[in-house]
Amino acid sequence: MPASSATQIDADRLWYRLSELAEIGKSEGGGVTRLSFTKEERAAKELVASYMREAGLRVREDAAGNLIGRREARVEEAPAVLAGSHVDSVRNGGDFDGPLGVLGAVEALQTMDERGVQTQRPVEVVAFTDEEGARFSFGMIGSRATAGALTPEHLANEDENGVSVAEAMRASGLDPEHIGEATRVRGSVYAYVELHIEQGRILESRDLPVGVVTGIAGPAWLKFTLTGEAAHAGTTPMNLRRDALAAAAAVMGRIEREAARTGTSVGTAGQLDLSPGGINIIPGHVSFSLDLRDIDEDVRNDVEARIMHEAALLCEKRGVELGTKTLQRLPPAPCSSLVRNAAREACEASGLVPFELASGAGHDGMHLTELCPIGMIFVRSKDGLSHNPAEYSSKEDCAAGTEVLYRTLLELADGD
Amino acid sequence: MPASSATQIDADRLWYRLSELAEIGKSEGGGVTRLSFTKEERAAKELVASYMREAGLRVREDAAGNLIGRREARVEEAPAVLAGSHVDSVRNGGDFDGPLGVLGAVEALQTMDERGVQTQRPVEVVAFTDEEGARFSFGMIGSRATAGALTPEHLANEDENGVSVAEAMRASGLDPEHIGEATRVRGSVYAYVELHIEQGRILESRDLPVGVVTGIAGPAWLKFTLTGEAAHAGTTPMNLRRDALAAAAAVMGRIEREAARTGTSVGTAGQLDLSPGGINIIPGHVSFSLDLRDIDEDVRNDVEARIMHEAALLCEKRGVELGTKTLQRLPPAPCSSLVRNAAREACEASGLVPFELASGAGHDGMHLTELCPIGMIFVRSKDGLSHNPAEYSSKEDCAAGTEVLYRTLLELADGD
Repeated sequence: MPASSATQIDADRLWYRLSELAEIGKSEGGGVTRLSFTKEERAAKELVASYMREAGLRVREDAAGNLIGRREARVEEAPAVLAGSHVDSVRNGGDFDGPLGVLGAVEALQTMDERGVQTQRPVEVVAFTDEEGARFSFGMIGSRATAGALTPEHLANEDENGVSVAEAMRASGLDPEHIGEATRVRGSVYAYVELHIEQGRILESRDLPVGVVTGIAGPAWLKFTLTGEAAHAGTTPMNLRRDALAAAAAVMGRIEREAARTGTSVGTAGQLDLSPGGINIIPGHVSFSLDLRDIDEDVRNDVEARIMHEAALLCEKRGVELGTKTLQRLPPAPCSSLVRNAAREACEASGLVPFELASGAGHDGMHLTELCPIGMIFVRSKDGLSHNPAEYSSKEDCAAGTEVLYRTLLELADGD
Repeated sequence: MPASSATQIDADRLWYRLSELAEIGKSEGGGVTRLSFTKEERAAKELVASYMREAGLRVREDAAGNLIGRREARVEEAPAVLAGSHVDSVRNGGDFDGPLGVLGAVEALQTMDERGVQTQRPVEVVAFTDEEGARFSFGMIGSRATAGALTPEHLANEDENGVSVAEAMRASGLDPEHIGEATRVRGSVYAYVELHIEQGRILESRDLPVGVVTGIAGPAWLKFTLTGEAAHAGTTPMNLRRDALAAAAAVMGRIEREAARTGTSVGTAGQLDLSPGGINIIPGHVSFSLDLRDIDEDVRNDVEARIMHEAALLCEKRGVELGTKTLQRLPPAPCSSLVRNAAREACEASGLVPFELASGAGHDGMHLTELCPIGMIFVRSKDGLSHNPAEYSSKEDCAAGTEVLYRTLLELADGD
């Protein structure tokens, strides 16, 4: 499906800016490293600020270091529409994860400016501070601050050199004592919309450049511990075994089945340890991890309950003791119908299929759901890769996504 | 079922000798360590030799260090019946694995002597050198030598201090150049029978003190390697995954099912490694081991073929590449009907159920199948434990097994 037919944004300018920003923090191997509060992140923000000014935006940085470019509206006091993403990266990351959403939003607002569009509501581009969490082992610092959810404990987190978030902020010219000034009050924000690469293969598998996100899945991380009995692999008949690995294999089969049957959930055993670990010894002990996600918390909880129920039955039948422990449990963030509807209509107006999909990865919007309606637009990722120098979305796909963002913002900024 | 009613052997003497032998190489924690060609093994052989002399046997040690006590017969040139086991142990092993078969055979022959029994064929007790393989990482040295299957490569194997089998033999007063003198010619041995603890739970689960062994299972050891694709656990839908661990779990399920359906085979995945090993990363690579055994090589091969077939289908369906490698493949050793029949009749004559079961663990008899008909008698193991200080068989069960051995030897030594 050609995305160029009705394109109003400037695809060449967008692509040039993506390329220029990608040079900041780039290694010889092609990977990008821009950790928060470093000179690379600072340089990236300064470059983006220059683009913002080219787009006619009023530029400021808030108390959390979020870079904000504002386009005024017919009604100055009206709640603002926010569009953004981040410019920090993981270590040795790619060119698109974050920058596409920031530069796409700048491009959309510059297009409005060039076309003389006036909107009811102001629109702001936000480059959130430290979405990735690559420096301090927890991320989404800027969006947490915007939502008033950044705690003193968060600010005490340290990087691998023992530098805390607060110290890094101070070194960067920010005052952590004033972090509360970054918080926006409810009612001051009309909606938040983010353009981002998919980081998965759903769009690629359907041959679609763009998708509308239904929600951001919340991960529940669990640890399963199975205790059977180590015994001689030769002398213990199959029916007299308490094989912890065979039990774990059966449980993993149920995890896969229960996640798959929903059509939306994903369940993954990514880590597994066993003992004793002899080739001729039945494993007496196995532990493995489960990462379970869905954009609907009820669905996720239902899948989790089914897995727990089946695991308990399987283990009981096998005489294997089952223990489970929750390591992390984040609620999913559903995307609002306000933004989803606007984005679907924007797809159709751009000549694109208004295909909807969930986000399996976390994004800044997760922290903004209490503040305002949120939504996201995804752009096809080559081979589903991200957090990797090989991360890639084509110029055409980036332009198509930005066109959808532009039209979505028009609707959100000027709709009833 | 009372085993004592018709007992002719001396249960107290047997138990005393088991206890006395168990003191050699015993640690404070109760574990027994008697590695081959050490002073502990030497002391054990000397003690057993003294028991042999008490039993009226003619004692010698062959070129492989096998300790042999011979009871002459009416027909001196007749092929001999052999009964034996070993007195070496694993590190920190138990009191019964090996000694029961040696001391049970001594007891049986001493009983014949005391009862003035004369037999057609001579009977010899053999304490084979190094059955366990705990010192040189390969075992059954004495029985291999007896069968003419001990090679120069075997003699070059080294222990953890770099001492070879040949050097250890020399230090022990044996000449490895003359190892061939330990080999017996076909026709010179009428049968071999070994009394041993079960090392499993089958007899215990059936509340039986003694069982007749149908054969010694041969292990096939394989390594399975599954290569899928590592991907983001959040952004990759269940139907777009190539999860190597989920595939491995499915294959392990089939291994269990295919082994169990035979009723005789055992299949065990004892080792498993995966990568990358992140809690939120789909495993791209998994390798695991399979220990597959049966006493019938055709059955084992059939189970293996079914597992391979199903594994290939499962992996193909999942887009996971499957590799398999054979690490070891030993043929099973069926027990001869000659010995099995004699042992079953001996059970009945002793007032015991002539229950038959397979040996999942390896024993010296495996190497003697080319030389003569073989057979084994098992005694119930508490909790199936062996290679462990907690290894235990009761005095009554040891006596019952020895009584069966005594009657079996009478039949083999004097039957037609």
